[in-house]
Amino acid sequence: MPLTIPAKPEHTTFLYSEPCADLDALSADIAYLGIPYGESYTFGEIASDQSRGALAMRRATDRILRSIERYDFDIGGPLYDNRQIRAVDCGDVYADPRELKDHLKRAEDVVRKIVASGAMPIVLGGDHSIPIPVIKALDDQGPITLIQIDQHLDWREEINGVTHGLSSPIRRASEMDHVGEIFQIGLHASGSGRQEEYDAAKAYGAHLVSAYDVHERGIQHVLDMIPDGGRYYLTVDLDAFEPGIAPGVAAPCAGGMTFMQTRSLIHGLVKKGRVLGMDVVEITPATDVNQITCITAGRLIVNLVGAAVRANYFEPK
Amino acid sequence: MPLTIPAKPEHTTFLYSEPCADLDALSADIAYLGIPYGESYTFGEIASDQSRGALAMRRATDRILRSIERYDFDIGGPLYDNRQIRAVDCGDVYADPRELKDHLKRAEDVVRKIVASGAMPIVLGGDHSIPIPVIKALDDQGPITLIQIDQHLDWREEINGVTHGLSSPIRRASEMDHVGEIFQIGLHASGSGRQEEYDAAKAYGAHLVSAYDVHERGIQHVLDMIPDGGRYYLTVDLDAFEPGIAPGVAAPCAGGMTFMQTRSLIHGLVKKGRVLGMDVVEITPATDVNQITCITAGRLIVNLVGAAVRANYFEPK
Amino acid sequence: MPLTIPAKPEHTTFLYSEPCADLDALSADIAYLGIPYGESYTFGEIASDQSRGALAMRRATDRILRSIERYDFDIGGPLYDNRQIRAVDCGDVYADPRELKDHLKRAEDVVRKIVASGAMPIVLGGDHSIPIPVIKALDDQGPITLIQIDQHLDWREEINGVTHGLSSPIRRASEMDHVGEIFQIGLHASGSGRQEEYDAAKAYGAHLVSAYDVHERGIQHVLDMIPDGGRYYLTVDLDAFEPGIAPGVAAPCAGGMTFMQTRSLIHGLVKKGRVLGMDVVEITPATDVNQITCITAGRLIVNLVGAAVRANYFEPK
Amino acid sequence: MPLTIPAKPEHTTFLYSEPCADLDALSADIAYLGIPYGESYTFGEIASDQSRGALAMRRATDRILRSIERYDFDIGGPLYDNRQIRAVDCGDVYADPRELKDHLKRAEDVVRKIVASGAMPIVLGGDHSIPIPVIKALDDQGPITLIQIDQHLDWREEINGVTHGLSSPIRRASEMDHVGEIFQIGLHASGSGRQEEYDAAKAYGAHLVSAYDVHERGIQHVLDMIPDGGRYYLTVDLDAFEPGIAPGVAAPCAGGMTFMQTRSLIHGLVKKGRVLGMDVVEITPATDVNQITCITAGRLIVNLVGAAVRANYFEPK
Amino acid sequence: MPLTIPAKPEHTTFLYSEPCADLDALSADIAYLGIPYGESYTFGEIASDQSRGALAMRRATDRILRSIERYDFDIGGPLYDNRQIRAVDCGDVYADPRELKDHLKRAEDVVRKIVASGAMPIVLGGDHSIPIPVIKALDDQGPITLIQIDQHLDWREEINGVTHGLSSPIRRASEMDHVGEIFQIGLHASGSGRQEEYDAAKAYGAHLVSAYDVHERGIQHVLDMIPDGGRYYLTVDLDAFEPGIAPGVAAPCAGGMTFMQTRSLIHGLVKKGRVLGMDVVEITPATDVNQITCITAGRLIVNLVGAAVRANYFEPK
Amino acid sequence: MPLTIPAKPEHTTFLYSEPCADLDALSADIAYLGIPYGESYTFGEIASDQSRGALAMRRATDRILRSIERYDFDIGGPLYDNRQIRAVDCGDVYADPRELKDHLKRAEDVVRKIVASGAMPIVLGGDHSIPIPVIKALDDQGPITLIQIDQHLDWREEINGVTHGLSSPIRRASEMDHVGEIFQIGLHASGSGRQEEYDAAKAYGAHLVSAYDVHERGIQHVLDMIPDGGRYYLTVDLDAFEPGIAPGVAAPCAGGMTFMQTRSLIHGLVKKGRVLGMDVVEITPATDVNQITCITAGRLIVNLVGAAVRANYFEPK
Repeated sequence: MPLTIPAKPEHTTFLYSEPCADLDALSADIAYLGIPYGESYTFGEIASDQSRGALAMRRATDRILRSIERYDFDIGGPLYDNRQIRAVDCGDVYADPRELKDHLKRAEDVVRKIVASGAMPIVLGGDHSIPIPVIKALDDQGPITLIQIDQHLDWREEINGVTHGLSSPIRRASEMDHVGEIFQIGLHASGSGRQEEYDAAKAYGAHLVSAYDVHERGIQHVLDMIPDGGRYYLTVDLDAFEPGIAPGVAAPCAGGMTFMQTRSLIHGLVKKGRVLGMDVVEITPATDVNQITCITAGRLIVNLVGAAVRANYFEPK
Repeated sequence: MPLTIPAKPEHTTFLYSEPCADLDALSADIAYLGIPYGESYTFGEIASDQSRGALAMRRATDRILRSIERYDFDIGGPLYDNRQIRAVDCGDVYADPRELKDHLKRAEDVVRKIVASGAMPIVLGGDHSIPIPVIKALDDQGPITLIQIDQHLDWREEINGVTHGLSSPIRRASEMDHVGEIFQIGLHASGSGRQEEYDAAKAYGAHLVSAYDVHERGIQHVLDMIPDGGRYYLTVDLDAFEPGIAPGVAAPCAGGMTFMQTRSLIHGLVKKGRVLGMDVVEITPATDVNQITCITAGRLIVNLVGAAVRANYFEPK
Repeated sequence: MPLTIPAKPEHTTFLYSEPCADLDALSADIAYLGIPYGESYTFGEIASDQSRGALAMRRATDRILRSIERYDFDIGGPLYDNRQIRAVDCGDVYADPRELKDHLKRAEDVVRKIVASGAMPIVLGGDHSIPIPVIKALDDQGPITLIQIDQHLDWREEINGVTHGLSSPIRRASEMDHVGEIFQIGLHASGSGRQEEYDAAKAYGAHLVSAYDVHERGIQHVLDMIPDGGRYYLTVDLDAFEPGIAPGVAAPCAGGMTFMQTRSLIHGLVKKGRVLGMDVVEITPATDVNQITCITAGRLIVNLVGAAVRANYFEPK
Repeated sequence: MPLTIPAKPEHTTFLYSEPCADLDALSADIAYLGIPYGESYTFGEIASDQSRGALAMRRATDRILRSIERYDFDIGGPLYDNRQIRAVDCGDVYADPRELKDHLKRAEDVVRKIVASGAMPIVLGGDHSIPIPVIKALDDQGPITLIQIDQHLDWREEINGVTHGLSSPIRRASEMDHVGEIFQIGLHASGSGRQEEYDAAKAYGAHLVSAYDVHERGIQHVLDMIPDGGRYYLTVDLDAFEPGIAPGVAAPCAGGMTFMQTRSLIHGLVKKGRVLGMDVVEITPATDVNQITCITAGRLIVNLVGAAVRANYFEPK
Repeated sequence: MPLTIPAKPEHTTFLYSEPCADLDALSADIAYLGIPYGESYTFGEIASDQSRGALAMRRATDRILRSIERYDFDIGGPLYDNRQIRAVDCGDVYADPRELKDHLKRAEDVVRKIVASGAMPIVLGGDHSIPIPVIKALDDQGPITLIQIDQHLDWREEINGVTHGLSSPIRRASEMDHVGEIFQIGLHASGSGRQEEYDAAKAYGAHLVSAYDVHERGIQHVLDMIPDGGRYYLTVDLDAFEPGIAPGVAAPCAGGMTFMQTRSLIHGLVKKGRVLGMDVVEITPATDVNQITCITAGRLIVNLVGAAVRANYFEPK
Repeated sequence: MPLTIPAKPEHTTFLYSEPCADLDALSADIAYLGIPYGESYTFGEIASDQSRGALAMRRATDRILRSIERYDFDIGGPLYDNRQIRAVDCGDVYADPRELKDHLKRAEDVVRKIVASGAMPIVLGGDHSIPIPVIKALDDQGPITLIQIDQHLDWREEINGVTHGLSSPIRRASEMDHVGEIFQIGLHASGSGRQEEYDAAKAYGAHLVSAYDVHERGIQHVLDMIPDGGRYYLTVDLDAFEPGIAPGVAAPCAGGMTFMQTRSLIHGLVKKGRVLGMDVVEITPATDVNQITCITAGRLIVNLVGAAVRANYFEPK
């Protein structure tokens, strides 16, 4: 029996993964990465509550998954299925207080290094502007089918001169050559979009699937719309969900997606083809309730990772 | 670039509408009105947490709808569909601290003026006693089919001598000549009602539809029960809903209605006939969570207004 | 009119029942009992937030049920159906600060006395270790079919030498001769269990029904799996539910059971055979939201009691 | 060792005193009385946060004084000095939700009964309008020297037609024949008073002692200003104090009185003459911090009662 | 009696002053100005809790001063002493989300315009980096005696390459030709300063007056150290104070200044010479308690303005 | 510029000290030690809010002292005065959930090892029962003059059979042969003590110094009462202080000690003789406000350590 025990530290990496300090020496199957900052519409939101989302999710680690070896009913066994999976946490993309935008390029560079190393990037946001550099970094991975789970369209050309803000990620992605079909799932209520954004999305050919479509027709109907054998990138805005499972967001509007639907979508995508990476964005920790929003986001990641492991994504070739 | 900007004020009208100061000069299609006070069972609740519901909803305006021109997926376009819809916020019914009940008459008078002017009244409560003067003011609009979304029966004759309190609105409405069929939807758990109130409701012929009925048979089944071509008044007690989307109420009991069901009911009613007005009541802002209850209530109003606009309610004759 | 009124006390018994001070003179149909403490894995959790669950539930009494005579839509009338039902609150099992485990034996003794007197025990936890002495006390009531509503397996042999902790209740129950079939319903996410606990449960023949099974196949499918005519004991861990209706638990993981499903299960069990008793556990009052978790737990008890009354459980023989 | 213990109720009387139900049979030395309501300036404040002050103070009983027999260093022994002191809690003055002002007369009647019985009234507010009926009820006890501990003047003739509101108690008292000299101690910052209220107070001859006067000259200087041998009534508005010891008030303005100064004032008054009664008002429980404001108010009462006991106020004649 | 009243807006200017939109047309005696942003040490603090200090103070307006005409005991009459004082609120210095530092120059420009117009600038921060542009803008007002009320030295040359951050304002001021003597009052506990910063301050000749010096020798002793007839600029960091009156700061360390001492210092300075302007900084609204920190800061401004008015600062020449 | 940075962990040792895992190899001048648990009066308080005090204080480290090299105005330079001081954090005394009292012996053993190694123990509680094993472990360090800063007497013989609980530490210390004179400073309000405890303390010869004595006569008067050249042990209960600087305690009663007084006492004791060790107890983190109570406690430790360093306590012999 010990006389004393050291004070228990909080979790500083996501899902108990090893910290990765040297990105050039990165050797892993899965790389968790925090991207706290994107591009902001106001000075007061350069650092916003959303910026603390990655930190909040790391702190929620043991409520997302009690420990790595636990049997998980969402995926039918331990997270990594007792296989030799290497997962690392690359920490947060560094942002210099003397430079306003360097971190965007840095975020892209980090994701490039992760992808180049062969690891799957799982990004913890941050607001919804952060997928822009992430998707850009996947430009040799195309054609990519972009799957967005969201309440909002996110097709703004610009707001107040800001072109890479949280209302524009799908517009920006649509302009990238390596991005192909786009599915926007869970749309409901209103957001930054106007008729012209709706028209632009339709003109591109984006598949707009409202939350009500999902509730009425079922998620399998949506999965059936998505071509098999694709290379998918999944971006999840937590405001897509019913407020009861994601209270800590800027826009908690009733009528949203359920966890069950989204879990089925994730498992379905992994079965269909290759999910290249994923992000979870728009958590506002200051208004979260008992970490429920962080846990929901984390459980979606557990489902993707667990499914990918079982689909042999990470088997040596 | 400006050198300075004025401090941003909070919202003082609901959904960005123009304030209306002179009710006699009212000229609008839709009139939002706060009725903070009704009749109370205890002295300590003359001013209750519910009394601050209208204020709380105005403050939540930009989370209910980011701005008037936004594309709203619940209604398939902007709130007013780019039509010349005139909406005003009449403020709150004034209550004099030296008179206990004058505001009830005043509430009735204000709604009469709104209706006389041709505008549709949308009332922000307040507890569930406030529909009594509202429905009374509609006495030249009958026969009215009363649609209540609620956890509770609200058929008390009186409590401690108080006859117009929050447990009596449906009883009082049932006694008005211009009120015809009554549908009470979402009933679950218990409330102020006893066997005798249940019996009174049945004796009247009220259609009692429990939340479990709705879950099992679907909302279309309920819509089918309601006669077409009616003149409907809709009163929505937020405690009808699942606590995850309406945590800030006095009686947050699981088993309640979903947003999806209620949205379908509202759209269905507008298609069936004429919805004369609507109220949302029983929000308790002090126990709300991230304004979710206010947002849910506000989104129901957006759905009614958006549907009414598209059903050509407000077209010049 | 009185000049003064005494300050209103909070509720000190559950559901307005009479306090029972002398267990040897117990004469009742239903006995509510608080068991705050079980066996703990760490010193810091000997008294945990869960320990205050019974107190929190008593305080929520008037939000669970406004008063005994109210018409309850979940059960189709007043709680006790206007019958001569006797219900008592036995208070909390006493725990001596100078003895670490005596209260476990005491809990068992109290439940034995309750059962011996012919009353149905309804236990307010406490964490999930507290059903162990409760089920043990039912050893002359077998064979018992154990019905667990839970997110987790709870089949640990031991953790750090502790064998009767909150991760072990089903393992311990499985070892009791009077326990027969075990149904574990609502499983999702992960918990203390590993592959070996999963294997142990399967080896025993436990029926593992995930929340996803329930969502996909419906609760009637689950009811059909459970043999009729049984003697059931029901243990409900609040973390089985969607976080929107049970935010105040240690593991609020999305994907859980709905109230509707669980209500149907309870009514179905009562119809099938004899429910011997029930516990609700793992409420963490400090993280509860507007007492919603306590109300949900209390409403489940109302459904069991109301159904049992109507199934003539408590009729004189 | 008991098997079970009943759930511990909260305190429903102040300082463990006996409840007094029949005021006509009142036989006590000290009578605690809650007066939740006075006269309000707005409808929304008819029931205000201050109205819950008496309830909040009763709940804080065991943090104000652990139990009656404890040795108290502020008064040099147990509260009642082991003498046969009879203290009762008369509950709260009843207020009828159907009558706006009857409770004011009722409050006066209750205090008259208390005084007539020979007991010292200790009033738990409520806002600062409640001393008006209390002082009025002392009209056969004059001449009374009124001692007010407050941040504010409280000399308004009326506000919006309301003459007996929280800004007027000293004006109203000054008009009563049985009120003589007035000392207003702890004045700082601003309040409802304007130059004309200041002038009215000076014209009456009120002694205005700012908090800065107290800080600079000491409380003994103030005591020396007050004539010996008087019959004093003490009204204490908690906003008189430094916010660190009274954070839960509507006007927490720095620069206020210390507990030490006020304690010395109370002990000094008791030594000088007869303190007829006391009230503590303007606590806002919703913004209190760890019950500190209630505890401070309660400790002042303990000091008055303890000093009065030791000054033989309650000895049989 | 009105039928309805518009919803009451929050305060959008400080102390009920007129908003000033056109700085070039500024004509006032006193100009309140918010400067939310300075220069930050980390990206995450570019917008910090301190940035919301000016907004929080405006919202606290009616708790700082109930209305302009109220008799204020701190200053012996109404704020503006019934004189024709013109006060405006210039809003907040605009900060462009696409430019990291332009707002610093803009802040300086705004203060220059205020001073050029003859108005006294009263600045609402923001963190403690914001006095740097303010003092710089006073470069034709020298020689200035800088009076700092603070827990910390604030003499850092730089931190991580940032030279104009919240730990450097006094160092930067000391380098300005128009700044003469520096008094740093209320120092206690530790801050960003090391031995070298202490040495630099001493080498400059800064007068370092610890809080303990003030407590032991009194504030008059400090006033006596400051030369008469000076032109003073006053910067007040709320962390200088006892936490009981300023709980909402990043560094709430016991042992600090009292309100009484600071009030005397302010009144003394105004009597001695000319106070050119003032700022209050380092309020963290998210951790404030019942707005106490904002009220304390606001009351200091009331004392300065009230004293300045009475010292005939704003009389026409 | 780094591409990424690891997430910043919270503080896991107190004041940036090195963790000490092997107590037998302990080589340090100062040893910080957490003792979360003592002996409890109720089962529900075996693990209480106070038990989390040590953890809360470690987490507050950077608000107590920004970093080790900072110039601290309370002690006139950096904490360790640029000397070779070795400080370690021994973590928390281990408590086994299967044994109720072993940790008391373990606490004593740990302190013995610390003292035997020559280090000064600084103990982070825990409630006020934890000094009992600490003082016992100093039995070869006598005669010890015990200095207690507290609101309460703490002289209970037993409560409900518990003899080593938080109301008994001074009684237990008084029975130890190596404890000599006892000074109890800051007494005010009431606590667990009755007349008989007061009498027992006086019979022992304990010096009872009320907070009012300190306020009236000054702390130097108290210091003069304490014999020079002693070997002092200092136990500090945070409820001794004014609630404004220690809101997070079980008994926040106004009238308490100031930081200034206590700082002077600590510096005076160090000058007088040898302070052998110190504890801070009774912090309740759940009711703390912006960590103010933890910061106050930590600043007292900084003052003791800083003074001891400068008094050459830790110089090699």
